[in-house]
Amino acid sequence: MDKSGMDKSVRSFGSQDKLRKLENKDSLFLCVIATTLTSRIPGITGAGASPELTDYTPAADVELIAHGAPKCLPEIPQTVVDGGAAPTPAVITKASLEMADIPFLVADAGSAVKPGLPYVNINDKQGENIVTGKAVSNPLEIFNKGIILGKTLSKLTDHLVIGESTPAGTTTALGVLEAMGYEAWGKISGSTPENPHSLKRQTVEQGLETAGLASEIPLDPFQAVGTVGDPMIPAVAGITAGSTVPVTLAGGTQMTAVCAFLKEAVENFDFQDVSIATTIFVATDETADINYIARQIAPIDIFAVDPGFEKSENQGLQKYTQGAVKEGAGAGGAMFAAQLKGVHIDDIRLKTEELCREIF
Amino acid sequence: MDKSGMDKSVRSFGSQDKLRKLENKDSLFLCVIATTLTSRIPGITGAGASPELTDYTPAADVELIAHGAPKCLPEIPQTVVDGGAAPTPAVITKASLEMADIPFLVADAGSAVKPGLPYVNINDKQGENIVTGKAVSNPLEIFNKGIILGKTLSKLTDHLVIGESTPAGTTTALGVLEAMGYEAWGKISGSTPENPHSLKRQTVEQGLETAGLASEIPLDPFQAVGTVGDPMIPAVAGITAGSTVPVTLAGGTQMTAVCAFLKEAVENFDFQDVSIATTIFVATDETADINYIARQIAPIDIFAVDPGFEKSENQGLQKYTQGAVKEGAGAGGAMFAAQLKGVHIDDIRLKTEELCREIF
Repeated sequence: MDKSGMDKSVRSFGSQDKLRKLENKDSLFLCVIATTLTSRIPGITGAGASPELTDYTPAADVELIAHGAPKCLPEIPQTVVDGGAAPTPAVITKASLEMADIPFLVADAGSAVKPGLPYVNINDKQGENIVTGKAVSNPLEIFNKGIILGKTLSKLTDHLVIGESTPAGTTTALGVLEAMGYEAWGKISGSTPENPHSLKRQTVEQGLETAGLASEIPLDPFQAVGTVGDPMIPAVAGITAGSTVPVTLAGGTQMTAVCAFLKEAVENFDFQDVSIATTIFVATDETADINYIARQIAPIDIFAVDPGFEKSENQGLQKYTQGAVKEGAGAGGAMFAAQLKGVHIDDIRLKTEELCREIF
Repeated sequence: MDKSGMDKSVRSFGSQDKLRKLENKDSLFLCVIATTLTSRIPGITGAGASPELTDYTPAADVELIAHGAPKCLPEIPQTVVDGGAAPTPAVITKASLEMADIPFLVADAGSAVKPGLPYVNINDKQGENIVTGKAVSNPLEIFNKGIILGKTLSKLTDHLVIGESTPAGTTTALGVLEAMGYEAWGKISGSTPENPHSLKRQTVEQGLETAGLASEIPLDPFQAVGTVGDPMIPAVAGITAGSTVPVTLAGGTQMTAVCAFLKEAVENFDFQDVSIATTIFVATDETADINYIARQIAPIDIFAVDPGFEKSENQGLQKYTQGAVKEGAGAGGAMFAAQLKGVHIDDIRLKTEELCREIF
């Protein structure tokens, strides 16, 4: 393990057996993209230079990973913080996958802007603003298509790593968790240092009230996503349910919503072969508590990778250590998967810095 | 080799070394679907019960392979011949892939009707009727996306088998071959016993004349596809060009158009790692000559599989031996890939008959 620096860089809230089981396996990284009109609410997300530009963030993220530059818009997604800009976590994902030679695929669960590369179509239509209480019109269809995709992809790899890019996705994850009866108020992470908890809560509550379901909680998972969720959640849950190989959910608190969905949508779902891998920035986020949420669902192994950005000369990456961005495009899980294949965390950081110099 | 009956059932116009090289490799079967309005010309294709229904054939074919039944239309694609009906070759593909446990993926190069399963989006828009001389608006974009997909998929398998479902695809393949300066009039196969050669030729000639390019032959491959081709051809060519593992083009004379495209689009393209695998019905088609076309392009290994349908009790499958259907949805290449993994041709036939009983 030491050769990849895992002992020091990975904070594990899970079993060491799991780590050994996943080591040196062939991995496939799938990034599931989606948008909802929720991200247009001013101040709710940092994943884009303006609320309108958040529509482009998922497509631009996966284009950056595949091509080294976004094709769908001239600007590269950055989060503006205190007058400076932190680069999209897609750069970390790209660095990790390239160093470990891990194949990269994209699936569209419903993104407003489609990426300029071949992608797996699961669902065309983006989600609504969840304040309407009509977030996603076809969660069952998305889940079922996800199952088919998970079955297929697990014939092509030994370890499926699933990331996501969904602007305002922590708000829709909060919606799904709360609608399903979990205690998640104030526990969900966010892409800005000042996590706008009350705005997120108001948005979710308004959606549940508009739908006339505020007093019907807990909702079933499909109703929860349909009312106040996003299309990424049933897609990733379906892919995970369909997989016959171990799955690493590459994301932060949003992936707990996927786990909650799975627990209720699949009878006796076994979390033995499912882990969450995220960044240390999510795991140590003082404005959130991923473990508190996960504990309510099931014993889920959570791994948190520390890329050591405090050592970085890149000021944008340093902003991650001050609470900006934190996670996205499966950055934490991509680092985790690269380390499992023997790549050292210091090399991932150096490669990320190199890409930042080239790209920005 | 004998255990799969290859010695007797595969007619090889290629090297035995190639066969040995491909044996027992992990294969991935990709079916590329597309439609053009060319298939609306009455009498030009048998791939659908009526010209309008040919829009549904590719989606229905891949749904049949994945789900055992089409979802996009109530009827199953059949070719009506002499008062009887021959089942879609997708049944043969399904039987072969299931028996050999070969993973199945779908890519859309531009089909009017989208299938009800996850598929890789390469291109959204179907092709025009080639009589307009404006068949495909973006062949270079499709080719380039194909290259990316080929690179990705070849990281996930040791042998890429690429089939296609494109109604009236022999007419558009004829268009591309003729536009590129090959002698293909009367040499291209078709899905009906009476191959409508003069209708196909008129259609191609009209397209070239309308575009004002009849006297400019040979055209470059992108112009050829753009004028009188279909979106499947640059997609499959791109995937093949991007692949780093051996590719089997699973189809009949249409795949020679893919090879011609590749030869001109990629400088010094090496056909060493590319084969065509089709059915015996194409190879022995007296109304066509796949070898005559292929010889003009390059030394390309061609394998033709005989499923022994004359032994079948199923009257629909027997119609294949009378010149109906012949090939499609990669049937020949799927049988070939299954045999390479040790499945006997007699078992493929029995499984095809079983599926016919279940499905039709």
